[in-house]
Amino acid sequence: MTEQEIITRYFSRHSADAGVEIGIGDDGAVVRPPKSSRLVITSDTLNEGVHFAPGCKPGDLGYKVLAVNLSDLAAMGAAPLWASLNLSLADAEHVWLEGFSQGLFQLADRYGVRLIGGDVVRGPLSVSLYMVGFLEPDLMLTRSGARPGDFIYVSGTIGDAAMGVKLRDGIQHRKMAKADHEYFTLRLNRPEPKVNLGQEIVSCASAAIDISDGLLSDLHQILLMSEVGAQIELDQIPLSKAMRRQLKTDKDWHVVLTGGDDYELMFTVCPEHQDAIEMISEKTACPTRCIGRITQGKGIELSRSGQSFSLPDKLGFDHFS
Amino acid sequence: MTEQEIITRYFSRHSADAGVEIGIGDDGAVVRPPKSSRLVITSDTLNEGVHFAPGCKPGDLGYKVLAVNLSDLAAMGAAPLWASLNLSLADAEHVWLEGFSQGLFQLADRYGVRLIGGDVVRGPLSVSLYMVGFLEPDLMLTRSGARPGDFIYVSGTIGDAAMGVKLRDGIQHRKMAKADHEYFTLRLNRPEPKVNLGQEIVSCASAAIDISDGLLSDLHQILLMSEVGAQIELDQIPLSKAMRRQLKTDKDWHVVLTGGDDYELMFTVCPEHQDAIEMISEKTACPTRCIGRITQGKGIELSRSGQSFSLPDKLGFDHFS
Repeated sequence: MTEQEIITRYFSRHSADAGVEIGIGDDGAVVRPPKSSRLVITSDTLNEGVHFAPGCKPGDLGYKVLAVNLSDLAAMGAAPLWASLNLSLADAEHVWLEGFSQGLFQLADRYGVRLIGGDVVRGPLSVSLYMVGFLEPDLMLTRSGARPGDFIYVSGTIGDAAMGVKLRDGIQHRKMAKADHEYFTLRLNRPEPKVNLGQEIVSCASAAIDISDGLLSDLHQILLMSEVGAQIELDQIPLSKAMRRQLKTDKDWHVVLTGGDDYELMFTVCPEHQDAIEMISEKTACPTRCIGRITQGKGIELSRSGQSFSLPDKLGFDHFS
Repeated sequence: MTEQEIITRYFSRHSADAGVEIGIGDDGAVVRPPKSSRLVITSDTLNEGVHFAPGCKPGDLGYKVLAVNLSDLAAMGAAPLWASLNLSLADAEHVWLEGFSQGLFQLADRYGVRLIGGDVVRGPLSVSLYMVGFLEPDLMLTRSGARPGDFIYVSGTIGDAAMGVKLRDGIQHRKMAKADHEYFTLRLNRPEPKVNLGQEIVSCASAAIDISDGLLSDLHQILLMSEVGAQIELDQIPLSKAMRRQLKTDKDWHVVLTGGDDYELMFTVCPEHQDAIEMISEKTACPTRCIGRITQGKGIELSRSGQSFSLPDKLGFDHFS
């Protein structure tokens, strides 16, 4: 297969306009942004042996590279529009390309995302995706708007994907039911980006981030950018039933607190807007839970059942430290 | 160094607005497109051992990954705005990162490009860059507008970068002067994207592409998309003095015809607009030369000194064929 054949066969789709004048097939794509909007631009790379294991199902990979970018858009309160895909492949294998593109388009179709371009080259397996979304006038979510007194919320349940990583890498040896194993693996491989939730809370949350590197590590980013501190009550952190079954010791909590890959949203809300969050949770069918509060101090204080709980040495994942 | 430190130290720059509301440091960048414009989005990946040799100077790599994207924008007639960088690194080395970022910003500054985001992750050395540019209302260049009778132009000189590749890979054994060797290497490592030329010809060229995979291969793309044929006169292809010294046999011509990496523009122009092209060449200080004509036929006919010249078996570079 030539590059052109790969692109035509697996990635070119003629779809309704959506502001796309020229899609895949020219030197660049030509798009029309919605009127008087601001655009949000995100990009993420997933590398074999780093972000995913050799032998990762291609459909999971195609799904996930779009999911992590949609999650970034959600954390800014943006609606998704267009994606560009840069794919490095050791070989052009039909089964792999078909699975990958199906996983990608499965999620793309759910949110009306148009694949408008990219690059297919030879190299160690690596997937970079770039996304453009848009914001309604005068609205956006950033990491820098949290104020003392704001409540800290998270969506979904926390730590499941990190448990999936431990299972994948063979470093979780405690016995568990097959169904729990499958649940954690699914949460790792097919995270559900909180696209609708992000677009709804943009009008009432003061700050937001998506939980990709770990609950504490990502909270730390909000605190740094907002110049505030935080108190977190461990008992309030929403956990799946499967995760509850795994939590035996204090150290087990580190998976919940520092594990990444959940792609849930963490956001802060001033007291007047708490009711709005409840309504949005219901409307988007997306559970959210208040897990603590922003303080005037610096850093993070953890407590559990009224007792202080020690901060882990490492707050989350970092590629180079 | 943490990811955050790498980004802050080498890639975060606070610069004048340029439509950037939120730059590097949040879940995504927030930008304001110019009013009633259409945007052009391009992306390119460069992998170690594929697009560049191990040991490639980091400054050359930083420069080149931006240059190849600027070249795509130029081929669409767009003005550059914002870039996003996805960088996979085996290690975070100060000397490498400093050289790379300097090369990148050196070219970025020349065209007012703002680096607004990206991703720094661990992996085999690979650089993906995404760019957004904009088009004036009602104007754009595509590959599909060439019509029979149009003249075919190229900018600059052709084949120099391909000779640079041969020298780099040690497969050019004919003796040459040191100055010529350096010239070819510079043309490969520091291509000059034809940003200004692209923005000027957008009002009068019928089709355009940048020469990245090879003169014939890229011409073939225009012919496919425009459903036309072409006649090319080899004697008219602009060559550097250094290249003329290397052209001894018919086979030597294949470097000129099928070598990639020149990042010159190839474009088609109807007879009425030939004068405009001459004026634009002068205004932008960018030499252009008519090398042939679009025909009603299919495919490419080559001639040299009035004689037919055989098409090479392979028209240019392809990663997977």
